Amino acid sequence: MELSFTPEQILKLVGASAIEGNQKPQTIRDIASLDKAQPGDLSFLGNRKYRSQMPDSKASIILIPEDYEGRPLEEQAFIRVENPSHALGLVCEEIVRVLWPKPEPGVHPSAYIADSANVCSTAYIGPHVIIEDGAKIGRQAMIEGQAYVGRHAVIGEASHLMPRATVLDYCELGSRVRLHSGVVIGSEGFGYETIQGVHHKLPQIGKVVIEDDVEIGSNTAIDRARFSETRIGAGTKIDNLVQIAHNVTTGKHCILVAQAGIAGSTTLDDYVVLGGQVGVAGHIHIGKGSMVGAQSGLNGDIEAGSFVRGTPVLPFQLAHRIDILKQRLPDLFKRVEHLEEVVGKKPNE
Amino acid sequence: MELSFTPEQILKLVGASAIEGNQKPQTIRDIASLDKAQPGDLSFLGNRKYRSQMPDSKASIILIPEDYEGRPLEEQAFIRVENPSHALGLVCEEIVRVLWPKPEPGVHPSAYIADSANVCSTAYIGPHVIIEDGAKIGRQAMIEGQAYVGRHAVIGEASHLMPRATVLDYCELGSRVRLHSGVVIGSEGFGYETIQGVHHKLPQIGKVVIEDDVEIGSNTAIDRARFSETRIGAGTKIDNLVQIAHNVTTGKHCILVAQAGIAGSTTLDDYVVLGGQVGVAGHIHIGKGSMVGAQSGLNGDIEAGSFVRGTPVLPFQLAHRIDILKQRLPDLFKRVEHLEEVVGKKPNE
Amino acid sequence: MELSFTPEQILKLVGASAIEGNQKPQTIRDIASLDKAQPGDLSFLGNRKYRSQMPDSKASIILIPEDYEGRPLEEQAFIRVENPSHALGLVCEEIVRVLWPKPEPGVHPSAYIADSANVCSTAYIGPHVIIEDGAKIGRQAMIEGQAYVGRHAVIGEASHLMPRATVLDYCELGSRVRLHSGVVIGSEGFGYETIQGVHHKLPQIGKVVIEDDVEIGSNTAIDRARFSETRIGAGTKIDNLVQIAHNVTTGKHCILVAQAGIAGSTTLDDYVVLGGQVGVAGHIHIGKGSMVGAQSGLNGDIEAGSFVRGTPVLPFQLAHRIDILKQRLPDLFKRVEHLEEVVGKKPNE
Repeated sequence: MELSFTPEQILKLVGASAIEGNQKPQTIRDIASLDKAQPGDLSFLGNRKYRSQMPDSKASIILIPEDYEGRPLEEQAFIRVENPSHALGLVCEEIVRVLWPKPEPGVHPSAYIADSANVCSTAYIGPHVIIEDGAKIGRQAMIEGQAYVGRHAVIGEASHLMPRATVLDYCELGSRVRLHSGVVIGSEGFGYETIQGVHHKLPQIGKVVIEDDVEIGSNTAIDRARFSETRIGAGTKIDNLVQIAHNVTTGKHCILVAQAGIAGSTTLDDYVVLGGQVGVAGHIHIGKGSMVGAQSGLNGDIEAGSFVRGTPVLPFQLAHRIDILKQRLPDLFKRVEHLEEVVGKKPNE
Repeated sequence: MELSFTPEQILKLVGASAIEGNQKPQTIRDIASLDKAQPGDLSFLGNRKYRSQMPDSKASIILIPEDYEGRPLEEQAFIRVENPSHALGLVCEEIVRVLWPKPEPGVHPSAYIADSANVCSTAYIGPHVIIEDGAKIGRQAMIEGQAYVGRHAVIGEASHLMPRATVLDYCELGSRVRLHSGVVIGSEGFGYETIQGVHHKLPQIGKVVIEDDVEIGSNTAIDRARFSETRIGAGTKIDNLVQIAHNVTTGKHCILVAQAGIAGSTTLDDYVVLGGQVGVAGHIHIGKGSMVGAQSGLNGDIEAGSFVRGTPVLPFQLAHRIDILKQRLPDLFKRVEHLEEVVGKKPNE
Repeated sequence: MELSFTPEQILKLVGASAIEGNQKPQTIRDIASLDKAQPGDLSFLGNRKYRSQMPDSKASIILIPEDYEGRPLEEQAFIRVENPSHALGLVCEEIVRVLWPKPEPGVHPSAYIADSANVCSTAYIGPHVIIEDGAKIGRQAMIEGQAYVGRHAVIGEASHLMPRATVLDYCELGSRVRLHSGVVIGSEGFGYETIQGVHHKLPQIGKVVIEDDVEIGSNTAIDRARFSETRIGAGTKIDNLVQIAHNVTTGKHCILVAQAGIAGSTTLDDYVVLGGQVGVAGHIHIGKGSMVGAQSGLNGDIEAGSFVRGTPVLPFQLAHRIDILKQRLPDLFKRVEHLEEVVGKKPNE
């Protein structure tokens, strides 16, 4: 990447006023983690875990938290900020503007736009895109190459479909929704009625509604409702390869980490966090702000504020204790055997 | 959705003859679950679990099972049917015909059809579709926008590739097969021979055969065989994000729930059910009608009619009992410690 | 498939000189496993597990390992080789050349190539492909139908993007890299800073670098780095539906089986093997040559040469032993109860 920031530019971007240490550090040409940084790099202390890497870091400028007490090396400068990770983000946002300039509005000639589709003149429609009958593309929306918008689907203002993202018939996206490549919104729910040994499809006539400010990762699939709607609450962030079945409702500001799966008709309240590869059964309810540890299997309701882990889930501390005790099972079996010998009783087999 | 059904139309669609309660309920304009229904909605009691929601439901018409004994509210009507979920499906099928009219046969001008491909004149080929050399598209097949059909692949009668579904070279689909968006049929199996530290690809020259009436969910991947074929039996239903490796054979009418994975050369007999996120090892055999609980890990053969769960799997009841005892491990350790004190023997460490 | 190999051709392809048994076996027209082979088929004994199938196999020619002592049937021929699986691969490579002839170089007229893209004249660009501004497509690269190459991305010599593979902006592929359908390289990492209850996107400005000879399976997703790079080491093989988060580094020659997931900033040394559906936490380190059993959950560093399994992981043998002891928990609880009765002490509840 061809970056170049003067120390003064960095100061301004992060909203700080003072440089500590070397007042004339090198021009910044790249960003790197503390351990990999070279002169000319900007780095940051975002996680306590990496504090030990500070004294050896060769970064020219390091963003540090307010309570950090170490001193910069001779050629090095520190910039003290409230939240170094957020501050780095501010610098990166500037870089995003340079590396990913917004394309001009307009429709690429290779795109297919159905006659009855309604595309705002301020939207961008890339090559080989398909916009089907009756679809609506809102102001400043970006529909990148090979994306697909089905019949009567609605894409809200400033929403962004990355290459090959797919929104199927009748589904609705709010404003500022971001769909990564390979996302499928609105495939049919997995519902069958088995009659005399044959699985008959239950028609899936509902839709998917994605509220404002949702982001959805690559190759994630969200099924349309059997009827009514599958709904993703505003501000919820969904990682790659996640499965969300028909009629699921997530609250606002949930976090669903990669490869998690939620079965049909389950409801998540606001601020629920599912770790990676978590599986959630159908028709259950997860209370507000609950956190479910990675790879857990959840098959019953949990109350607001729960912090659980395991398959089936247990309160986090108990799950942790049981994990440790499980490792001591070989010893426990020996101890019981020993007791049986002492007591003079064989196991009652 | 713009729906409108008179009570008489509903009666006719579900094959019932009598309305109980209000003989003149509102015209039906939507479908909703019992708890969310409003006047003008059709609802149904499909699952015993929701029986408690019946007295408070505001639905204008409710489809009820034959043994239901409650009474409708004043404005409300009941229609008694053998299977309310199936009956609702019959109404929904009518809605599907309205919301998803079949497109006219023909090839969209933006599609690429290789000269030697054979596309039936009754098939629909959408925008930006690719049909490669020697591929055959059967009668009344629907190949939606951006779908891909590889060289010498065969798509049977009335099969349906949804937008961005992919069928690679030499693979064969029977009749009435439905592939959802992002499905990949016929990617190469994951097989390598490691020689002097380098993983050499084992060529994967077989194909995938999908029998009649199979449905496959979004972003699921099914690999071609190393040689011979990977085969999905007739009537089998596969959910989203499932992985099926080379040379797997599934029987007829299996159900594979989302994110399940099956390693190479494993065989499933008819009517096997794999829960969500189940992992099945390679080269094993699952007997007819077996059910494997969600998130289980199966690494050995199981007999017909098995009902198993866990990693590694155990008979369902035993797995359940062990889950409960596991939670009592902290107590068990204390009890053994206590016994040791009483008996006067320290653990033999 | 229309294959036809004389026994002499098979001998030559596998580099052997002698036929044992029937010196004039049938012309080979297909390849099949031992148990399914018919006259006219080539088969092989690649796995000790299938030795019992040898006496009943109807294959006309069987590739056998050097130490195999059985005798061919009357009509049958054996060809003795060092590694039957590898030898079969040599025959299959010949078949690949017939079934998958290399397309002629050139750009399909329906492809969109941005003006500033640089496509080598020896590359093949299929229908409906998109090559964005500043992208570079190397010598003899194959970019199949509907594949996407983003702005300033680099595709190295003889690399192969299968239909619908996606390489996003600024990402780089080395030589002979193979991406299967639906792969997404370079989607944005899943990183947010939560400020006053709102998840703010941390810009993801890094790239993905895929070194030489890497193969990546269908619908796998690899996220670009928050800054700097996500890197996949040379010779690494990745199966379908795998998730690799931002800033992950894998060493050379790793094997990542289907549906495995690796969280952000984790580092794998060379020759690490992750089984199917394994989950690896973020910011950890996996030592060289370690093997992690299927479905395991790894949440801490492991040393080189580790062989672990379970959630959380344990050394393989211990995990196995605990799995067995766990099944005996119902008995253990009874034994402790029995001891308590004998000793005359109730559990201290």
